[in-house]
Amino acid sequence: MVVKVHGSPLSSPTLRVVAAAYEKELDFEFVHVDFESGAHKQLPHLALNPFGQVPAFEDGDLQPFESRAIKNYITHTYERNGTTLISKDMKQKAIQAVWMEVEAHQFDPTATKLVWELVFKAMFGMQPPDMAIVEENEAKLAKVLDVYEARLSQTRYLGGETFTLADLHHLPQMNRLMTTGVKKLFDERPCVSTWCSDILARPAWKKTVELAETSLRS
Amino acid sequence: MVVKVHGSPLSSPTLRVVAAAYEKELDFEFVHVDFESGAHKQLPHLALNPFGQVPAFEDGDLQPFESRAIKNYITHTYERNGTTLISKDMKQKAIQAVWMEVEAHQFDPTATKLVWELVFKAMFGMQPPDMAIVEENEAKLAKVLDVYEARLSQTRYLGGETFTLADLHHLPQMNRLMTTGVKKLFDERPCVSTWCSDILARPAWKKTVELAETSLRS
Repeated sequence: MVVKVHGSPLSSPTLRVVAAAYEKELDFEFVHVDFESGAHKQLPHLALNPFGQVPAFEDGDLQPFESRAIKNYITHTYERNGTTLISKDMKQKAIQAVWMEVEAHQFDPTATKLVWELVFKAMFGMQPPDMAIVEENEAKLAKVLDVYEARLSQTRYLGGETFTLADLHHLPQMNRLMTTGVKKLFDERPCVSTWCSDILARPAWKKTVELAETSLRS
Repeated sequence: MVVKVHGSPLSSPTLRVVAAAYEKELDFEFVHVDFESGAHKQLPHLALNPFGQVPAFEDGDLQPFESRAIKNYITHTYERNGTTLISKDMKQKAIQAVWMEVEAHQFDPTATKLVWELVFKAMFGMQPPDMAIVEENEAKLAKVLDVYEARLSQTRYLGGETFTLADLHHLPQMNRLMTTGVKKLFDERPCVSTWCSDILARPAWKKTVELAETSLRS
């Protein structure tokens, strides 16, 4: 029975689940849910996610949805496979949980606005970026990265000395921002810059990018 | 050494942590962080949360911030105390994680907009509610509660047969909406209505409301 990840290569939550699946060396099938045809708002997808969103996941009769819940499931169910994405040690785990929340509430909202203005608007042939929104969010992101710089001067990764979900969650938006002027905010901070290069070079992330590109072309 | 919860009685993430602490029967001290004086953006609070937000938490040298990370910490560190807020069974845990994410991404954003328009604007003496925003979010909330009704016709609580964090997280916004016209959306759905009455009546939640009221008056 093959595990299935249902999602879109344009969706960051989907790419986070794919990256986690590769890190855990799971044998999985990627099912491209086509937004343009509205497949996400119809059966059979609605049976996997009643809110009609991606990603969804199938592992036999267990079909968790919402990307964080899926990653939580993969991490614990396949804890002996591949990379240990969450420590078993209670203290380390608590620290990693903090940085996962920091990504979700501090990094992601501002990074997502920048990606929308600077990457997706051009990709979808929309109007040029709203530079007021870009400047406002660059300033916010700079403050977040100042906190990261302080943290990463103490530990190699956000959650401690090993790579965890707290780092992995940054990859989709970070990867897209590297093609924009926002890259300078990462480059200007030495510990942040080293961390970025390190996590973007992970084989599981490279495979994720390849899968997304193949899926977009097909 | 007493555990400390730092936060504001007006902050839903703070009240979720307080409710979890009461459910786990923790002996804790509540430290009111005064937004009006800007205490959250100054030391000593910034040492507990570098983003200057609430809640923050102290348990000796462990000081997790971000409310979900704090609850995760409390639940696991004090797993033998009080209510079991997350199952140990892997399958149940995966299901509970799904519904925690549903609360965060489907229920909370729309409930928060309604609370702002219908409760906080009046509390802070601001302009009357924007009824276009209210109507739009009532429609969204109705759809979310339709999914809840289907779920709660199968299981007593969102995460299964026992009360978990997946239910608890709804309490602050649900409690505020009960004083508004939005209450009808809950009342119209029998299983949702039973669930609401059940979780709002929990002794730990009643204590949380009391603490918030005392703290606001002082």
